[in-house]
Amino acid sequence: MPQRRASALSLSALSLSGERFTARYRLHGPAAEIAVRARAIGLEQTVEFPEDLLPGTAIRAQIVGELAGIEAVDDEHFDVLIRYPVETAGRELTQLINVLFGNVALQPGVRLLDLDLPASLLQHYPGPRFGIAGLRALLDVHGRPLLCTALKPMGLGPTELAELAYRLALGGIDLIKDDHGLADQSFCPFAERVPRCAEAVARANRETGQRCRYLPNVTAPAAEVLTRARLALASGAGGLLFCPGLAGLDAMRNLTTEAAMGAESGLPILSHPALLGGLCVGPDAGLGHGLLYGLLTRLAGADASIFPSFGGRFALTAAQCREIVAGARAPLGHLAPIWPVPAGGMRLERVPELCTFYGHDCILLIGGDLHAGSDLTARCRAFRQLVARAATAPAA
Amino acid sequence: MPQRRASALSLSALSLSGERFTARYRLHGPAAEIAVRARAIGLEQTVEFPEDLLPGTAIRAQIVGELAGIEAVDDEHFDVLIRYPVETAGRELTQLINVLFGNVALQPGVRLLDLDLPASLLQHYPGPRFGIAGLRALLDVHGRPLLCTALKPMGLGPTELAELAYRLALGGIDLIKDDHGLADQSFCPFAERVPRCAEAVARANRETGQRCRYLPNVTAPAAEVLTRARLALASGAGGLLFCPGLAGLDAMRNLTTEAAMGAESGLPILSHPALLGGLCVGPDAGLGHGLLYGLLTRLAGADASIFPSFGGRFALTAAQCREIVAGARAPLGHLAPIWPVPAGGMRLERVPELCTFYGHDCILLIGGDLHAGSDLTARCRAFRQLVARAATAPAA
Repeated sequence: MPQRRASALSLSALSLSGERFTARYRLHGPAAEIAVRARAIGLEQTVEFPEDLLPGTAIRAQIVGELAGIEAVDDEHFDVLIRYPVETAGRELTQLINVLFGNVALQPGVRLLDLDLPASLLQHYPGPRFGIAGLRALLDVHGRPLLCTALKPMGLGPTELAELAYRLALGGIDLIKDDHGLADQSFCPFAERVPRCAEAVARANRETGQRCRYLPNVTAPAAEVLTRARLALASGAGGLLFCPGLAGLDAMRNLTTEAAMGAESGLPILSHPALLGGLCVGPDAGLGHGLLYGLLTRLAGADASIFPSFGGRFALTAAQCREIVAGARAPLGHLAPIWPVPAGGMRLERVPELCTFYGHDCILLIGGDLHAGSDLTARCRAFRQLVARAATAPAA
Repeated sequence: MPQRRASALSLSALSLSGERFTARYRLHGPAAEIAVRARAIGLEQTVEFPEDLLPGTAIRAQIVGELAGIEAVDDEHFDVLIRYPVETAGRELTQLINVLFGNVALQPGVRLLDLDLPASLLQHYPGPRFGIAGLRALLDVHGRPLLCTALKPMGLGPTELAELAYRLALGGIDLIKDDHGLADQSFCPFAERVPRCAEAVARANRETGQRCRYLPNVTAPAAEVLTRARLALASGAGGLLFCPGLAGLDAMRNLTTEAAMGAESGLPILSHPALLGGLCVGPDAGLGHGLLYGLLTRLAGADASIFPSFGGRFALTAAQCREIVAGARAPLGHLAPIWPVPAGGMRLERVPELCTFYGHDCILLIGGDLHAGSDLTARCRAFRQLVARAATAPAA
């Protein structure tokens, strides 16, 4: 092996602000290896270069992620804090995530749990335009969780889905979203479905005096996302459903920019976890639930974040759901708190428990279970009554 | 609980082609549960609806994913084949992935291993525009693996990176990519870096008579990807580096469409695994390596796919790397075979072993190790000689 020394390169002055953002990783492994592994992360996520070969001293001092602390969690788990220069992430969400977790995502035994972003970095992210308060104002619903359901099953046509939407809105649902499996299929074209469903919900609203909103799914090929969002807005939709795991977290953020949605004030965004959740399935790898469904989803501008709640078809624990609630609602600079949306096989009988656990500021998403029984509208009213009754009980 | 029966909905005729694509999932768990879990996947990924509440019989027959086989792998692992109607995915990559793995990605104990896509579905994906043969023709390099390296470390400015690029090209490297951590940072703006590095490589080519290509990183916020790709093309870049995990698989596919890159024939695309690899870290969850780095990356139009090879800083096995090679190079309808790009801490001393393992049709990506020693250009020449020598040995 040749002598390891840096190749002579004339370096121009590197002069960064010195301001840093902090990532907390949980490492799984023997205590004796943690400090070395932590320093390797600081190199991997920035210079991706052998430390002894770095040209000059400025890059080592100003660019490389700095180990700022190690905390033992148990015999096999250790939290390490790494501080990265804000300039490495710049103003881009894609690059922020790259610095935090790009290459480390390829390694088992490392989980990104949390972030601390200084104001100079947060300023690049306006975040949710509505959040909890804004969506309450749009709906004029206060003091209780919101009711949400999905238009399904896939296979129904636009007319049938519109009829469903009408019955659901008549029953007092606040938010009716497309099932995330509804895209632009031949048996249910987006351009036909969206105006029909929006019209059906508007018709129900005229009868009930309520402000139910229809949220079509605008997850789409990269070049079609904005087109569909604009068509949704023009068709009278009341919000957008988006799957950032399928189409990109930054594509969701892009939906919140003014230029993307014309001069209008835009539509609230409901984030769906399809594919994205694959990044937090392993216990000792991937992203923490609170970070993924809470902080990052909020940073990317969603007003509400669907996640698979404990007690449903998926495998989250109550503790993990609490982390998500914190990520969605805890203070985060200027970013508005957003709605946690527990879902994934929720049933009416669990409404009281869910209301107690998640408090008033959540959206309860119940899909298939509303269709049990012969009268869909009546079952929606029962859902509504359960929520109203639970809302008088003390919140979590 | 109320009587479970479908609400009366007047169904229009659903009349699909009957053609299906097949997904192979590997389930981890007791044998007795496999058939039930497999059927649940077929429902989850399509109607996401209780089977006994489906309206009418057409949706059950024509939309729901159909269990087509169960194969025991060992006492705890079983492969199940599910057949989905081609119309559920339509013409959209986002929706194809959604049907295959959207919600199932949230579950532990399920891994998507492989796909079988019929011609009617493959027709929506032109795939790589260059692939192995096309890139060989552009470079006029035959009968040996290609040599690739990255411009780094992060922290260098455009002038310094251009100087590096010149020395690397002079040493006989075929493809010089931006480090995937180079975005549009204040200390190295994209618009300044790309023309300088492209010019430096062109200058070296005039001296050597070779056709080295520079591939800038166009991973960017959703609204800026095409702008950067066009700027790269206009600046004389020879290809594009893209991280589909950060910016979306479909955003990569979108780079291959004619409209996206003007009337030009476009630039070859090198896919980088940042964040994406997080979807295949767990052994019993996520996506199979061959599927992710091979088939899906190829479907999304990449001409070459970087992955963390066995024997480097990451944790893949030789068997997993073989799956990736198969996904990249095995016949797949009309889609051209693409380049596997083993990377992640490769060193010069491993070149003979890598050439034997991966054969001639691979791209060897060596980063930091080229900088060991006092003469970068000389070390590139040594890399080139090692590859030339290994290429005369029998391929894997």
